[in-house]
Amino acid sequence: MSEVELDVPETRAAALERYREVRATTDRLAMGLCAEDQVVQSMDDTSPTKWHRAHVTWFFETLILTPHGANYTEFHPDFAYLFNSYYEALGPRHARPHRGLLTRPTVEQVGEYRRHVDRAMEAIIENAPDNQWSEFAPLLELGLNHEQQHQELMLTDIKHVFSCNPLAPAYIEAAIGKSRGDLPPVEWIEYEGGLVEVGHQGGGFAYDNESPRHKSYLEPYRLASRLVTNGEFLEFLADGGYQNPAYWLSDGWAIVGRDGWHSPLYWRRDEGRNDNGGCDLGAWSEFTLSGLRTLDPDAPVSHLSFFEADAYATWEGRRLPTEAEWEIAAVQANVDTSRPPANFQDNQIFHPQSARFSPGGGPIQMFGDVWEWTRSAYTPYPGFQPLDGVVREYNGKFMSGQMVLRGGSCATPANHIRATYRNFFYPPDRWQFSGLRLADGP
Amino acid sequence: MSEVELDVPETRAAALERYREVRATTDRLAMGLCAEDQVVQSMDDTSPTKWHRAHVTWFFETLILTPHGANYTEFHPDFAYLFNSYYEALGPRHARPHRGLLTRPTVEQVGEYRRHVDRAMEAIIENAPDNQWSEFAPLLELGLNHEQQHQELMLTDIKHVFSCNPLAPAYIEAAIGKSRGDLPPVEWIEYEGGLVEVGHQGGGFAYDNESPRHKSYLEPYRLASRLVTNGEFLEFLADGGYQNPAYWLSDGWAIVGRDGWHSPLYWRRDEGRNDNGGCDLGAWSEFTLSGLRTLDPDAPVSHLSFFEADAYATWEGRRLPTEAEWEIAAVQANVDTSRPPANFQDNQIFHPQSARFSPGGGPIQMFGDVWEWTRSAYTPYPGFQPLDGVVREYNGKFMSGQMVLRGGSCATPANHIRATYRNFFYPPDRWQFSGLRLADGP
Amino acid sequence: MSEVELDVPETRAAALERYREVRATTDRLAMGLCAEDQVVQSMDDTSPTKWHRAHVTWFFETLILTPHGANYTEFHPDFAYLFNSYYEALGPRHARPHRGLLTRPTVEQVGEYRRHVDRAMEAIIENAPDNQWSEFAPLLELGLNHEQQHQELMLTDIKHVFSCNPLAPAYIEAAIGKSRGDLPPVEWIEYEGGLVEVGHQGGGFAYDNESPRHKSYLEPYRLASRLVTNGEFLEFLADGGYQNPAYWLSDGWAIVGRDGWHSPLYWRRDEGRNDNGGCDLGAWSEFTLSGLRTLDPDAPVSHLSFFEADAYATWEGRRLPTEAEWEIAAVQANVDTSRPPANFQDNQIFHPQSARFSPGGGPIQMFGDVWEWTRSAYTPYPGFQPLDGVVREYNGKFMSGQMVLRGGSCATPANHIRATYRNFFYPPDRWQFSGLRLADGP
Amino acid sequence: MSEVELDVPETRAAALERYREVRATTDRLAMGLCAEDQVVQSMDDTSPTKWHRAHVTWFFETLILTPHGANYTEFHPDFAYLFNSYYEALGPRHARPHRGLLTRPTVEQVGEYRRHVDRAMEAIIENAPDNQWSEFAPLLELGLNHEQQHQELMLTDIKHVFSCNPLAPAYIEAAIGKSRGDLPPVEWIEYEGGLVEVGHQGGGFAYDNESPRHKSYLEPYRLASRLVTNGEFLEFLADGGYQNPAYWLSDGWAIVGRDGWHSPLYWRRDEGRNDNGGCDLGAWSEFTLSGLRTLDPDAPVSHLSFFEADAYATWEGRRLPTEAEWEIAAVQANVDTSRPPANFQDNQIFHPQSARFSPGGGPIQMFGDVWEWTRSAYTPYPGFQPLDGVVREYNGKFMSGQMVLRGGSCATPANHIRATYRNFFYPPDRWQFSGLRLADGP
Repeated sequence: MSEVELDVPETRAAALERYREVRATTDRLAMGLCAEDQVVQSMDDTSPTKWHRAHVTWFFETLILTPHGANYTEFHPDFAYLFNSYYEALGPRHARPHRGLLTRPTVEQVGEYRRHVDRAMEAIIENAPDNQWSEFAPLLELGLNHEQQHQELMLTDIKHVFSCNPLAPAYIEAAIGKSRGDLPPVEWIEYEGGLVEVGHQGGGFAYDNESPRHKSYLEPYRLASRLVTNGEFLEFLADGGYQNPAYWLSDGWAIVGRDGWHSPLYWRRDEGRNDNGGCDLGAWSEFTLSGLRTLDPDAPVSHLSFFEADAYATWEGRRLPTEAEWEIAAVQANVDTSRPPANFQDNQIFHPQSARFSPGGGPIQMFGDVWEWTRSAYTPYPGFQPLDGVVREYNGKFMSGQMVLRGGSCATPANHIRATYRNFFYPPDRWQFSGLRLADGP
Repeated sequence: MSEVELDVPETRAAALERYREVRATTDRLAMGLCAEDQVVQSMDDTSPTKWHRAHVTWFFETLILTPHGANYTEFHPDFAYLFNSYYEALGPRHARPHRGLLTRPTVEQVGEYRRHVDRAMEAIIENAPDNQWSEFAPLLELGLNHEQQHQELMLTDIKHVFSCNPLAPAYIEAAIGKSRGDLPPVEWIEYEGGLVEVGHQGGGFAYDNESPRHKSYLEPYRLASRLVTNGEFLEFLADGGYQNPAYWLSDGWAIVGRDGWHSPLYWRRDEGRNDNGGCDLGAWSEFTLSGLRTLDPDAPVSHLSFFEADAYATWEGRRLPTEAEWEIAAVQANVDTSRPPANFQDNQIFHPQSARFSPGGGPIQMFGDVWEWTRSAYTPYPGFQPLDGVVREYNGKFMSGQMVLRGGSCATPANHIRATYRNFFYPPDRWQFSGLRLADGP
Repeated sequence: MSEVELDVPETRAAALERYREVRATTDRLAMGLCAEDQVVQSMDDTSPTKWHRAHVTWFFETLILTPHGANYTEFHPDFAYLFNSYYEALGPRHARPHRGLLTRPTVEQVGEYRRHVDRAMEAIIENAPDNQWSEFAPLLELGLNHEQQHQELMLTDIKHVFSCNPLAPAYIEAAIGKSRGDLPPVEWIEYEGGLVEVGHQGGGFAYDNESPRHKSYLEPYRLASRLVTNGEFLEFLADGGYQNPAYWLSDGWAIVGRDGWHSPLYWRRDEGRNDNGGCDLGAWSEFTLSGLRTLDPDAPVSHLSFFEADAYATWEGRRLPTEAEWEIAAVQANVDTSRPPANFQDNQIFHPQSARFSPGGGPIQMFGDVWEWTRSAYTPYPGFQPLDGVVREYNGKFMSGQMVLRGGSCATPANHIRATYRNFFYPPDRWQFSGLRLADGP
Repeated sequence: MSEVELDVPETRAAALERYREVRATTDRLAMGLCAEDQVVQSMDDTSPTKWHRAHVTWFFETLILTPHGANYTEFHPDFAYLFNSYYEALGPRHARPHRGLLTRPTVEQVGEYRRHVDRAMEAIIENAPDNQWSEFAPLLELGLNHEQQHQELMLTDIKHVFSCNPLAPAYIEAAIGKSRGDLPPVEWIEYEGGLVEVGHQGGGFAYDNESPRHKSYLEPYRLASRLVTNGEFLEFLADGGYQNPAYWLSDGWAIVGRDGWHSPLYWRRDEGRNDNGGCDLGAWSEFTLSGLRTLDPDAPVSHLSFFEADAYATWEGRRLPTEAEWEIAAVQANVDTSRPPANFQDNQIFHPQSARFSPGGGPIQMFGDVWEWTRSAYTPYPGFQPLDGVVREYNGKFMSGQMVLRGGSCATPANHIRATYRNFFYPPDRWQFSGLRLADGP
């Protein structure tokens, strides 16, 4: 491992409990899906549920059981080929856009694969000699965080699959909270900036891309106290936002034209309704993991590309925050991400909820609900070193062409996120729960 | 209906029996497939099993039950949109390349749909007033033939799906016959030609594209007594057939280069084996509906595009027959297609079998095994009139850019084929059981 | 040469005169074009003027001078690579879609190349020993016909280049005839059909694809006495022809949607004008080789794809003729193609002209004006043998996926066309002068 | 204008002289090109010479003459449509990928257009009232810098056009310097970093994207004293650099596979030569603006994409500098960019030259030769404000997906570059003179 070492869980018992919890969550998330749902790939960016479930299992098998499991027998000789995602160092693999062609192994067989690996993993966690344990324990923690990332993707990917179906199926009959009409107004919270430190400080797990902690100079800036809402974004539409190139980055405007974008990904005009030019709130629905719902004006706008988030901010006369600005604010907010009112995967709503008034006066919705696009390109921190070995490819090789998002979403497990966490997607990507918070200044 | 009327089954009881038999066959063909297998679409040309099963059902619902069923209640209001294939007159429909995105309705629900429609169909066949019966009886026969066509596509499509899977699943553990080393040599059967009549003569069901029966002038010609075999096609490979543009039509040669064709669709080089330049028979396997099998040199070559069939014939110094030449020979052969030795779907082998010596001396394998590419473009017969009404779109609108194939295959029901039957595919298509018989002269 | 031998001109003096005439015509056609015009390629199907002029020259150099010219010195060693069109047997060549990247050789240098080859050709025609002369004389005639084909392409290709330019340049300030309002009405000329003979009979030059002459059986049929006009085609538009799939072949309808076809290729709606739904004649202009002109309702409609021609005929309740039907009518009409009123390249109008009343009562406009789409796919005649040697690739390898057109156009040299001439293009192609004549029956 | 005002030249006489000098340089650069060369567009990213020459002229016409020229008469009403590059605010325009279809206006007409605008510009510079002069003088300076940018593009674009021609034409018979075998070794120059200031300080012209000047914190770092050479890059090839994904960013590796990259853009293997695996220096040539030349091992490697530059640095165990690191070093180097030994457009060599030993000990080749890829994404500086008005679109809307390059190249005018200058291209772009300098630390 490189000097940026992965953190080791404190005890084997704690590790075992955590292993079981994460793995069970994955299975629970898939429980509402029938076999047909789990096999389909709706676009190159998404993967079938079944594939996700097998891939995270392959990760443990390949990085822990095969090298460290004394008597471990591989479940199936071809699974390494089928379920490697992008690790060039681990040999050839099934092409990503063809994941949806694999009707076999079946969902049932993938379940068996998971149980086979779980049995071996539980045994090795409990019984491995100490020296071996300390070798693989960091990879175990990495594997669990990896699986949590794929839990989020399972949700966003099946949402995309269902959105392609004219029947608009629901993943879950969730109690998507209704807005109560008490949306707090935006306040502008001031930050003095100066020479700050950002990045992971040590203590607890973090990915390599969050290190090293380093100095950065910030001008004074302001952040909006809450996320931008559907109602606010609708004003952008009403003002011809999608028709006016003045608000758009050049690459974004080209996509607006090429792909005919006219609203966030899952918004749908209710054709029959009487409305005034498409900007009447009542005239819009939104496809959610609970099926089609009337658009909630107070809920955070979601499924925006970076280009749409940036265009909205430009139209507003503001801008997106940088990732350092966001991180400093998030650290100061000192939020316990593991408790309400943050809206994480744990809530099982799987949809962003409208902001509630915060007594403390700090920014709200910094964590959960939607990932917040920043204006920062995803590039290495000064002195960045990728992990050693195969997992070197985990983060570093994606450091071009993508933008950083911060804060987690309603599909992120609460114990997976932190203030220094750097998520990244391409500027046109819209199928994640991605929204924005406005920034201002210097 | 147009003057080219569809034929009416003789009695309602016969119609009912036939309806039940065809519908049961479809279900039986799907029985070996799990839910995952039935949902995937491997390329634009193929459709999911589940879709086929629902589409043929929609055909009866839309053309018979909705207009003629007194109290018929549609199974689901969106199914007309989901399961219309290409009937423009029946309104908008789910885009063909996106059929594989429909995880719902599930396989189970499609099964219920089938039973719902079957109950109503059986009732209407038995109980409709006579005047109504005579109105829809021709459409019933059309619908059953339509379903038989889709039975064949179910087989060729799932073969393609499975061929994309590195696990090479088997659809059925069929007893694919082994060649016994007694392949009859090719003999050249002579036909005098002259002013002949081709096309459907009346009596029994036929599609509109087989009419009207008309005169055609043929020069004297010769046909090979049997199909071209894998072993013979391998000689074309060994002679550099796929590397030499001299044998290829220009459009075909462009595809050879663009798509890297180097053998029939489902042939696979056995990498490890010791062979001499790839032309050793032992060095090739073939993906079949029973999984990967060693290539049988005596079995008919299959899964050829028109371009490959034509190139082979050119290399041989021969040519493909015209459809009229083929039809005259098929009529003279006077084969009872419903009995052995013809290798149809009914055999449940689902793979072409090597030719057996024919005592009579006529051409063998005219029916079954593989569809035979002709050199005839699929154009209307002189005086062709499409059917009236919605089914006008059944055949006529495809009369450009495609080539005629004749004779049926190992995936065709025996009672579906006849000497005048015109199948048609685009010159590059290879996923059907398509091979060739050589012609010669004038 | 194969048994289908090319014809030999009668005397060397006649050959020399013809050579000079054809070559001079090519240069004259390019005279109005500046260097910039001659270098650009506007789509894959078209070629730069400069390339045409060099390619036809390369044909003589490669097929006659190099093998037969005793002391001939190649003009430039790389030109064989640059100016081979599609002859696989003559080695690798510059990719067709990249012809427009060749700024060098310049127009001036291509002119030198032409003069270099002309000097050598004239010498060899005059001075070659008799046995050599009889060897290459057929190739000379082929080369001259080849150059005439490229003369037509020079015109259609530069028309396409100019049509892409918002300045709408004119190639020539031609006196495009105005219609005089005396368009003869369509009459239906009857043909009895029966067992006829079609194809080249010998005597005079013909391409290999016109042979062998062979019997064909035709039902009785009728042909329209003249071409379909712009005014008539406008009625098809007015009736929603481009919006109604009922008239279209399936492949054509897909292109209508994909490419947004809404009128013949070069028609343009005059935005500013007051019109009733786009179907007012005054509201349309047409881009011609003399720039934008008000659409002439009586002139033949041109620049149709096969799909549009076929859709129009279907809408009319008629059909396109087969090539045999057309040929029989053309032979019976016994037209001297080399004299008025036929509108050929020789007229230097380069635009189809409205039909004039014909005293004889036979069909008019069979030759010249526009190529007439037939419903016949371009396939080999029974017994077809391609030419031997390199020129084997001239016609035969294109015999798939294309449709036959007959009769020549306003860009065809009068002495290049004949009743048996088979031109061929893909069904979607529109940049040729291609229109239609209706047929009816049986 | 925004608060980031463009700088005004000191006197009208100076402005006039500078105007004449820049305009004359553009014409001189086009002088060696024939009309054919100037019309072709070889890929979407490049533009025809003729288009560049007209577009920079349109810029003056549109931004100065039309609004400020009292009696100015537009040269041609359609030129605004034809020669607008990307200014959405100025209305619709000819699609970028179709610039190469415009054979008209001719080169000669574009020359007239230039002279027409020059006459009016010279008059307005000399005679405009003072208040008007101060209004448009900043736009004049912007227009001249704009034209200088297009001078560089004229060179890189015609290089690309010529590189597509098998004849490998030369733009100029330049005295590309031969290396003298005295390449200075790389030394590592140390920088202490800390809280620095970067960005334009005021005084002299700069683009809006160079402002505002702002603080940035840098860890200590080291820069290589010179650029990476062809010889050094060849070692990367010899070590399998293009075959090993370990060195590549994920997006870069995908392009290597998709486009078959195996060397810098203009390198060509000399097929015939005896070499050891392609890594023998003698076995490579490089296409230059003086035609094909033997690869000079000591000259800076050029025409690299960001991906290749980054992969090389990774292979070396180093990294690319950030733009701030580069700028601090460039400022400290205190180079007079307008004098030798820097290799700019002014040298008329148009090819990077090998480094010469620098007496001072600082970094060499910071300016000229090749643009240096940095690891910095092209994003706005803190507090960035685009220019007001139409020129708002000049830089800001491109701030996504691109990487910053610094230092100018052998195609950049000496008086166009400065330490704060930010050039930007997409990571896969290779047709610019783009290379790299290694960085190290922290």
